[in-house]
Amino acid sequence: MAQVNPTVGSLAANAEKTLEWTEKAKRAWADVVVFPELMITGYPPEDLVLKPGFVADNIACLNALSKKIRGITAIVGFVDRKDAIPRFKHAGACFNAAALIHDGGIKDVYHKMRLPNYGVFDEERYFRPGSSALNFTLGGVTFGVGICEDIWFPDGPVRAQAAAGADVIVNLNASPYHAGKLAVREKMLRQRARDNSVVIAYNNMVGGQDELVFDGQGMVIDSSGKVIARGAPFDEDLIVVDLKILRKKPRKITEGAEPPQGVRDITLSPIRTAKKRALRITAQKPSDGVKPLSENDEMLEALMLGTCDYVKKNGFRHAVVGLSGGIDSSLVAAIAADALGGGNVTGVFMPSVYTSKESLEDAKALAKNLGIEFLTIPIRGVHESYISTLKTALGGSRPGTAEENIQARIRGNILMALSNKFGWLVLTTGNKSEMSVGYATLYGDMAGGFAVIKDVPKTVVYELSSRLNKRAGRRVIPRRVFTKAPTAELKYNQTDQDTLPPYDVLDAILKAYVEEDKSAGEIAALGFPLKTVRKVVRMVDISEYKRRQAPPGIKITPRALGKDRRMPITNGYGK
Amino acid sequence: MAQVNPTVGSLAANAEKTLEWTEKAKRAWADVVVFPELMITGYPPEDLVLKPGFVADNIACLNALSKKIRGITAIVGFVDRKDAIPRFKHAGACFNAAALIHDGGIKDVYHKMRLPNYGVFDEERYFRPGSSALNFTLGGVTFGVGICEDIWFPDGPVRAQAAAGADVIVNLNASPYHAGKLAVREKMLRQRARDNSVVIAYNNMVGGQDELVFDGQGMVIDSSGKVIARGAPFDEDLIVVDLKILRKKPRKITEGAEPPQGVRDITLSPIRTAKKRALRITAQKPSDGVKPLSENDEMLEALMLGTCDYVKKNGFRHAVVGLSGGIDSSLVAAIAADALGGGNVTGVFMPSVYTSKESLEDAKALAKNLGIEFLTIPIRGVHESYISTLKTALGGSRPGTAEENIQARIRGNILMALSNKFGWLVLTTGNKSEMSVGYATLYGDMAGGFAVIKDVPKTVVYELSSRLNKRAGRRVIPRRVFTKAPTAELKYNQTDQDTLPPYDVLDAILKAYVEEDKSAGEIAALGFPLKTVRKVVRMVDISEYKRRQAPPGIKITPRALGKDRRMPITNGYGK
Repeated sequence: MAQVNPTVGSLAANAEKTLEWTEKAKRAWADVVVFPELMITGYPPEDLVLKPGFVADNIACLNALSKKIRGITAIVGFVDRKDAIPRFKHAGACFNAAALIHDGGIKDVYHKMRLPNYGVFDEERYFRPGSSALNFTLGGVTFGVGICEDIWFPDGPVRAQAAAGADVIVNLNASPYHAGKLAVREKMLRQRARDNSVVIAYNNMVGGQDELVFDGQGMVIDSSGKVIARGAPFDEDLIVVDLKILRKKPRKITEGAEPPQGVRDITLSPIRTAKKRALRITAQKPSDGVKPLSENDEMLEALMLGTCDYVKKNGFRHAVVGLSGGIDSSLVAAIAADALGGGNVTGVFMPSVYTSKESLEDAKALAKNLGIEFLTIPIRGVHESYISTLKTALGGSRPGTAEENIQARIRGNILMALSNKFGWLVLTTGNKSEMSVGYATLYGDMAGGFAVIKDVPKTVVYELSSRLNKRAGRRVIPRRVFTKAPTAELKYNQTDQDTLPPYDVLDAILKAYVEEDKSAGEIAALGFPLKTVRKVVRMVDISEYKRRQAPPGIKITPRALGKDRRMPITNGYGK
Repeated sequence: MAQVNPTVGSLAANAEKTLEWTEKAKRAWADVVVFPELMITGYPPEDLVLKPGFVADNIACLNALSKKIRGITAIVGFVDRKDAIPRFKHAGACFNAAALIHDGGIKDVYHKMRLPNYGVFDEERYFRPGSSALNFTLGGVTFGVGICEDIWFPDGPVRAQAAAGADVIVNLNASPYHAGKLAVREKMLRQRARDNSVVIAYNNMVGGQDELVFDGQGMVIDSSGKVIARGAPFDEDLIVVDLKILRKKPRKITEGAEPPQGVRDITLSPIRTAKKRALRITAQKPSDGVKPLSENDEMLEALMLGTCDYVKKNGFRHAVVGLSGGIDSSLVAAIAADALGGGNVTGVFMPSVYTSKESLEDAKALAKNLGIEFLTIPIRGVHESYISTLKTALGGSRPGTAEENIQARIRGNILMALSNKFGWLVLTTGNKSEMSVGYATLYGDMAGGFAVIKDVPKTVVYELSSRLNKRAGRRVIPRRVFTKAPTAELKYNQTDQDTLPPYDVLDAILKAYVEEDKSAGEIAALGFPLKTVRKVVRMVDISEYKRRQAPPGIKITPRALGKDRRMPITNGYGK
């Protein structure tokens, strides 16, 4: 299994990568190599699929590639197209497909039968479902081909493929990461393997694409449900397994199973070359020592890979972060330094009259520990200039949110000026708790190209920061950053808890409301004061307009604030 | 047909409105009254539908409402739910439904069979398709019930309903406006009526919801395909039609038609009260004089209704617009003044050293003509303060985009300060041409809550401005605003055409690329220099990150820049 990292839209480069990893697989004596879902286009290609030229280009790339793939069988994801339906071009006649390439030619094409259209997925927008499953036989072993969602249903194509004689199911994936997902996948795959007495080779994409991170962590599971090989977490990997296929007695159809109708079955001639063995039926190779990560390490790796890929795939080389001396900006800077190298990150400290001496010390120490450039740009002068310019217009009212937000927006403007001047990417530092309740200034601290910890609740920000220090073996993020009270420092003696409930309470309420769709009453019943719950729910609801203008950030929870959660701005519910 | 304007999420208010219009229909002696699609929830409720509490509340509202609807038959859109499917709660067991309410009780519920999942629609994300069509018979006349997309397919439920004896098809809609759509709808409906020998009562929602405007313009079409009544454009309306139903000979099944299986048919007892006639079979009432608008008037009405509803449904009472003296901000201010009243709009002129005397004169004259408040807030002082603060950090390089953008961002900050202080909604003034190529400053002129003309190409901005003056019978927008060269005035002697091709060329290329998915080669073949096309295409592609952070704006073209067009930011295609 080639667990690789393509780039959405980079058709030629993705085809090139496919060829390169096919060669690696050949050098490892593989008979069959599997690539991720939509390898040629990258995933998700979104509305690029509505461009006929894009789909044609991806097919041309696949065709050219297939001629170069010799001496091996390769299964490669791409967008297939059948005759267009004139009136409903949007309903399209495109398919999320896998080409069965064998020794220089495309022998068959499988069309994904189950299309996810929930969460971050919009596959019904682009694709039509396939109508028949595909098995192929090579050297006496029968392989079933499936794509991602196909394998999630007990009554899906796997059952029919197994009933039609499949020994091994290869499943091509672009399965986005969220915390806890690996265990869910593994449990499902083990059950699917056992229930159908098949080996499952689950190959996942790796890499970051806007809001999504694909975590790799492919698996090969034997027919008893045991994981016999794992792909690296958050990295490219070639997962090589020799399978011992025990020829089974004629299969009994499981009770309640679909008869194996609608399964195409083609036979490929084994490839023999001077150096090439026929399909080796040898002892199973044990798991090669890749261990699943702890949940915090997984999240850190997801954030680093997501940040690194967003920066590099968008052609940036350098990132800039506003440092406040607080925990959020410290974690973001540390992730950026790890992902890009300290020399490719600038931290900017922008003190106002409300900024404490401790904030400066902590920000400076962090920058030194990370080896990143540290700039100090005070905003006092600009702030005074705004206040004097706006004196008449604001009518001498008491300073309030308007004046506080001006400070945040000055900082946003300064970072954007550096971005415009030097071509740096601005990373924003808002966490999921703040973004959920709108405790952030639009065009202020929300200004930037990528929101690294947008899906990380504040309580988890502390955990990840701790873990990061532990991994580094030293206090990269200074101790005081963990212990002082969180504050936006937009006025004197301000702390987050003037406005928000304690973060452990807030995060629990937010999880129930944002991720689990519980009502205020149901959340209160979990043991929170109804008044607090109502306040939080209201803050979430009325700040939808801010989130709509937020930069994308990396999904690490079951429901992130992005295309995972599509709420109306104009919304009278609960008001 | 009650062509009404509900608010998404305002369940109780929407139910109340349903009752109020039912009473109006009774006073007009109607036997049957039809409401729009998803009347109880508003459309589109988006991810509110994933909240079990929201769906339960909408069903409770419908049930309570049904008991109050007496002496008439009402067909009311709502979200229905059947037993949930445990694992795939996202796939849901919700239906886009219509309740058949008759004299105090729900007699049947129809589930929409065709679910749109393209363009701005995501119905497969929320709903499952219904499996059977619904006819009901009242006083000897058979009605078929359908929802929106159901009627767009020649082989859809209408054919089966007609074959099963339907005389009248009532179709509940939330059909979003775009220029030219009325003619497409009308042509389709006339054909559907003729092909099936049925009367079609097509009732559409009216009102603005975030990016969408529903235009009303319902129609009743007789079985010969003639429009016999029209609902008002962009306004609530009760469309009352007496239908003369000629009892037909037993219907011959059209060749190739589905047999009328899967059509439920229920019979309702006619309601007789002292004042109530039985179903009147009288002469057809001719079209009552509502005429379709010209395309420019339609677009203006869409922009006004969309702006008015966004402002009011979100609880604002006052809007603020940055006035530059140019055509875009002039049109936006004029639309706002028309939609909200001049007294509820403030125009802010924010001159820099690059601002011409003519700009001030034109902005001032416009504000006077519109009767809106006019503020002047110079940005020179703040700009100088930024430049001096950033002197070291920007390293004495030649002033360029970074310095220009600071000016735009100061203006954005000033408008947001007014917004924060006074609770005003900031309307942005960018047009579709600029937003497409990224000729706008993120957090600068793009800062605001609602982007009125985001989907209006620059060439159409001129047309609509002209038309607006004509409708007013005077030069509300001063003559010079039309004749001077468009400029951002961010440096000396700057005009848009330093950077962009002439707007007529740009808009034609953009239409082909953004709305029609043509490739650069195909666009060049339409008669544009390939170099220009490539430049424009590239500008569109690389500015996706800006659009992702733009405020929502009103869709008036077949493909708007919003949820209508979902492009990846990270995108190697064509690079």
